[in-house]
Amino acid sequence: MYEITVPQFAKILGNLNLMLDKAADYATARKFDVKVLLNARLAPNQFHLIRQVQIATDVAKGLAARLSGQEPPKYEDNEQTLEELKARIQKTIEFLNTVKAEQFNGWEKRTIAIGFMPGKALPAPEFAIQMAIPNFYFHVTTAYAILRHNGLEIGKNDFLGQLNFRDL
Amino acid sequence: MYEITVPQFAKILGNLNLMLDKAADYATARKFDVKVLLNARLAPNQFHLIRQVQIATDVAKGLAARLSGQEPPKYEDNEQTLEELKARIQKTIEFLNTVKAEQFNGWEKRTIAIGFMPGKALPAPEFAIQMAIPNFYFHVTTAYAILRHNGLEIGKNDFLGQLNFRDL
Repeated sequence: MYEITVPQFAKILGNLNLMLDKAADYATARKFDVKVLLNARLAPNQFHLIRQVQIATDVAKGLAARLSGQEPPKYEDNEQTLEELKARIQKTIEFLNTVKAEQFNGWEKRTIAIGFMPGKALPAPEFAIQMAIPNFYFHVTTAYAILRHNGLEIGKNDFLGQLNFRDL
Repeated sequence: MYEITVPQFAKILGNLNLMLDKAADYATARKFDVKVLLNARLAPNQFHLIRQVQIATDVAKGLAARLSGQEPPKYEDNEQTLEELKARIQKTIEFLNTVKAEQFNGWEKRTIAIGFMPGKALPAPEFAIQMAIPNFYFHVTTAYAILRHNGLEIGKNDFLGQLNFRDL
């Protein structure tokens, strides 16, 4: 579980950071304010790009902290600029990098309280497999889709990042 | 790894099937051909909904087969109607249901040939963690995003499906 989440989420968040750099370059080249992209959404009652990134980072730090028996670091959720959003991603990656595999020992016996449903909880395996992992990829993919829909030239490799293919 | 992929991918594909039912009802209520949705995309050079579902099911059967030492079932990739697309999802779920946890024994020592890169391979852990799991959620989320962008009233619960919350 550690390998499937902590280092892999850090990798994907690094990829997301690079996509935001491309978004900034795109805005400069086309002469529009990058905040247009940060506030873009795919449907009127869907969260905008900033909130997608906030939730993706929340899910990453939440899973890494809860499964290693820690309180997740608290963020202010007040990012408005590209720099602030990138800083949030960066500090999440740095937090993930502090969580070591051995801190996950016994993770599957933990009970995880659900923040937005006071009094409710899930056993850690259900929390991780059915909620946190799908949620993490859901919000990163939605961030990607918002950028892609607005004309940014990104592709699957930007999302997955580098893969170390070997010769058969 | 088995628990994180095979039964969970079957669950998510079941959710995707229900979203397609909602898409059909939406098309009927608004008096348009559901094929408009099946051929919708978020960017002109992105795959349409049919292809997103084809790839999501490919990734699911590919991972389940490769990690259990089997050849993945071959599909024709010729779905054009909602019924055909739902049938593809259903047969993928049925294949996943045939793969048992004990068939994953020793999965981490397998080498996985990459279909679209002849002569190239990844060790199974890198294939699963860095490629197949993110890809699966990427394509299901993109299918969701295409429907959401076209006005279908779906939300996160449609994507995640039922979670069995307990009292703390």
